[in-house]
Amino acid sequence: MAPSSTATSLPVPVAPIPSIDALISRRAANRTFKHFAASITDGAPKNFKPHPKPLALSFGRPNAQYFPVKKITVEVDDYPFQDTLFKNEERSQKPVVIERYPEDSELLGTGEALQYGNIVGLPAFHKFLTNFVQRIHSPAYDDWEVTASNGAGEGLNKVADALIDPGDVVLFEEFTFSPFGNNVRNVGGIPVPVKIKFQKEEDDGISADIDVEYLSHLLENWDELKPELKGNKPKAFYTIPTCQNPTGLTQSPETRQKIYNLASLHNFIIIEDDPYGYLTLPPFAVPDVESLKKHDVSIDDYLQNHLVPSYLKFDTEGRVVRVETFSKVFAPGLRLGFVVGHRKIIDVIKKYSSIVTRAPSGPAQLLLLNIIDQKYGGIDGWLEWILKMRLAYTHRRNVLISSIVNSEAYKLGYIKVVSCDAGMFASLLVNFPQGTDNIQKINLLNYKLLQHGVAVVLGHKMAIDEDFSEGSSNFLRLSYACLDTDDELHEAGSRLSTAVKEFFDNGLEY
Amino acid sequence: MAPSSTATSLPVPVAPIPSIDALISRRAANRTFKHFAASITDGAPKNFKPHPKPLALSFGRPNAQYFPVKKITVEVDDYPFQDTLFKNEERSQKPVVIERYPEDSELLGTGEALQYGNIVGLPAFHKFLTNFVQRIHSPAYDDWEVTASNGAGEGLNKVADALIDPGDVVLFEEFTFSPFGNNVRNVGGIPVPVKIKFQKEEDDGISADIDVEYLSHLLENWDELKPELKGNKPKAFYTIPTCQNPTGLTQSPETRQKIYNLASLHNFIIIEDDPYGYLTLPPFAVPDVESLKKHDVSIDDYLQNHLVPSYLKFDTEGRVVRVETFSKVFAPGLRLGFVVGHRKIIDVIKKYSSIVTRAPSGPAQLLLLNIIDQKYGGIDGWLEWILKMRLAYTHRRNVLISSIVNSEAYKLGYIKVVSCDAGMFASLLVNFPQGTDNIQKINLLNYKLLQHGVAVVLGHKMAIDEDFSEGSSNFLRLSYACLDTDDELHEAGSRLSTAVKEFFDNGLEY
Repeated sequence: MAPSSTATSLPVPVAPIPSIDALISRRAANRTFKHFAASITDGAPKNFKPHPKPLALSFGRPNAQYFPVKKITVEVDDYPFQDTLFKNEERSQKPVVIERYPEDSELLGTGEALQYGNIVGLPAFHKFLTNFVQRIHSPAYDDWEVTASNGAGEGLNKVADALIDPGDVVLFEEFTFSPFGNNVRNVGGIPVPVKIKFQKEEDDGISADIDVEYLSHLLENWDELKPELKGNKPKAFYTIPTCQNPTGLTQSPETRQKIYNLASLHNFIIIEDDPYGYLTLPPFAVPDVESLKKHDVSIDDYLQNHLVPSYLKFDTEGRVVRVETFSKVFAPGLRLGFVVGHRKIIDVIKKYSSIVTRAPSGPAQLLLLNIIDQKYGGIDGWLEWILKMRLAYTHRRNVLISSIVNSEAYKLGYIKVVSCDAGMFASLLVNFPQGTDNIQKINLLNYKLLQHGVAVVLGHKMAIDEDFSEGSSNFLRLSYACLDTDDELHEAGSRLSTAVKEFFDNGLEY
Repeated sequence: MAPSSTATSLPVPVAPIPSIDALISRRAANRTFKHFAASITDGAPKNFKPHPKPLALSFGRPNAQYFPVKKITVEVDDYPFQDTLFKNEERSQKPVVIERYPEDSELLGTGEALQYGNIVGLPAFHKFLTNFVQRIHSPAYDDWEVTASNGAGEGLNKVADALIDPGDVVLFEEFTFSPFGNNVRNVGGIPVPVKIKFQKEEDDGISADIDVEYLSHLLENWDELKPELKGNKPKAFYTIPTCQNPTGLTQSPETRQKIYNLASLHNFIIIEDDPYGYLTLPPFAVPDVESLKKHDVSIDDYLQNHLVPSYLKFDTEGRVVRVETFSKVFAPGLRLGFVVGHRKIIDVIKKYSSIVTRAPSGPAQLLLLNIIDQKYGGIDGWLEWILKMRLAYTHRRNVLISSIVNSEAYKLGYIKVVSCDAGMFASLLVNFPQGTDNIQKINLLNYKLLQHGVAVVLGHKMAIDEDFSEGSSNFLRLSYACLDTDDELHEAGSRLSTAVKEFFDNGLEY
């Protein structure tokens, strides 16, 4: 593809490959770290010979015999919702047994996991993370590394610290997981929204996508379009590429390539936040547990045809930092995730972690890793579990959306489904007549929803800049992750539709 | 006690009680935090009535049926080193059983612990922490609060963020847990050392203590003594009051009261780092497992006569921030601790945690709390476990120190025991002749120690300022926490003594 300035064909990079060092924040680059562990490499007498079996009176770490935990046995479910959704499936009841010092040296024991651990994760966990990234999202360059984090929120904060200096501009999707704005502001960065394009489809549905033309135009004409930020072009673009929160949109591989090219051309970092990335769902269908099985694809099929490639796959220059978490595919309470990026970026994150956060919690790594190793049997078994999660989310999505699309409010065109093809969120557009004050009316509608007993998140509450996004603030984020039963999901969809109809019937009044 | 300017009788506070707000860092006070959870309190229509049983499509948190952990069973030791040191004691083999949804609503289940948790700790854990502080170290004022942390190192970082602005001076014991210096420098603070007094005792032993007269004099004459910091009096004093790391000294209650009075008079915060505080040990004795039992004191006796009161007990003004950890009395891998202080300080720490670190890990809280609740039976049972830890540390200390005091090097006066009456560290003074270059010679001795196969920490490696502390840099920190067996501890002490003797016999050469 040749460089071009037309709107549909975006330019490829022409700038020289930048120095990663130049992208690291001054704060992180200048941070000092000292430890008191004595070095024996300098100043040794000529005839110095260390003892072959030294005894340590040096370490302040307690012997593992001080830790009261002798053995942990974990009963693990074979399927999510196995007593309802997967109640007829075969199960193996073999528990996961975690010894203090496992005979199998590949396994993580309580003795090690309860001891002081490594900043990047315990060795077995760090190895798992590295192998996992290598297998699934291997970057298009070699000098990358992984470090554990205490979940995605904490991982994102590490990234903000590593890259963003006071005054640096960070681009955000206009509606987004707004807490990352707290992290950016906390290090003095300036969030700037980027348009999401909502578009009518031929089937009368609505699609959402990053407005890449808008982004390209903005970057090319930065000083004119953002006079208050003249000369201060963006340092980073924060994106949730799959099941974007809150819109639910998933960027196609083509969109990712185009945005990567812009990053390369305009020299910014892509911060990829991908908590839902594994949960790309088949299209909506009438809910039916039996027919779920046809979506029970093989791992190869899943990796080739269903999982959308991470930005890492396009990254030839080390300008993508990917933040993952085990919150959505295992459990949020673990507070365990990881960050993948260029070694130089991970190096400054490691120094930060050594001072600020310290190592991640041992019991979380112990639990997760032993379940993956013993119950699932490693990376492919872990992917099998993810595929079961995917089926469970598919079913619950189908129940909720089915309840909505069969409603009068939907049939009358009052609401339209924007995105529901990944993760745990669907977004619904409320079809207010042209000229409506979207924010005022959707706030009022919210009271009608609450009166009918259904809580949602209003899209505009997740806007980086409400004024910028007023025109497309007429949508609701629905999560099918949390409720207990199919009946509740169905009832919630039904309450929502009834409330919307009542609101429209009442001339958009409460 | 009347105000006085003599060296031995220190002044009591005369300054008005300060505003806590004025002690909080500008960074922390100005930090903003936004979340997208919709509020329904403002702008509601007059006739708005919320549904009594709302269904949530709002939360992005996965249903607990997505978490594969069904049930956890934990076999817990009744004693530390129960297969060796306490092998003849009675044991109850009843395991700790943790259900997804425990029948007993007081117990923490996996369903709750694996879900998104609270910043201050899960409700049951936070309640335990509050009750624990109330029972053991209740502050001398009412408006205090507790928040969980990810261990002491992370807790200390939270405190540095909350209190220290760029340019603020923080006093440190001259030899100290130097990593906190990283935290202070990371927020722009300036560490300044305070003298520790090593003093010959009548029994020819050596005692160590904070030099309170030095501190008082320094504070009263700050501008003259620290011209480079003129007008910039200390914002805080960082202290490890029990089993100070690395000297092993424990401040008496009288010392604590005097230092608190200075804090009040000169308006600084006391940052109390107390990882070893529970492990106050009886005096050194010949190691003998049977006679350990006479130190198996009651909880009341322990609390009244053995545990040294926290600075919180002297704190009438909310100027003490106490940092605790479960690392030394349970296990470091948990990465679990807590911070106690004035509500206003804890409030800014909570805001910081909401942005930067997020909530502590669930499995760590789950494991600890269920063991405390089910195995130990609550706070007093937890103290019983701590008392068993204390006995185990007493024994191991006795083994190591006995090996040293029975050595030729000791009998010849080459080494002296400075402190070994608390925690997991003893410090040994190497009795170099007057005029010796302490740092040069102790570095050289270290190679002799390593040749003989014993690793220690050199005191001066933990100095805030090596030049300031050169004169008292002739000591070694020994830990009896880490080695596996009594035999190893004995052998390590013996190697150390042999190496020292050889070094002295060789005219302080390798």
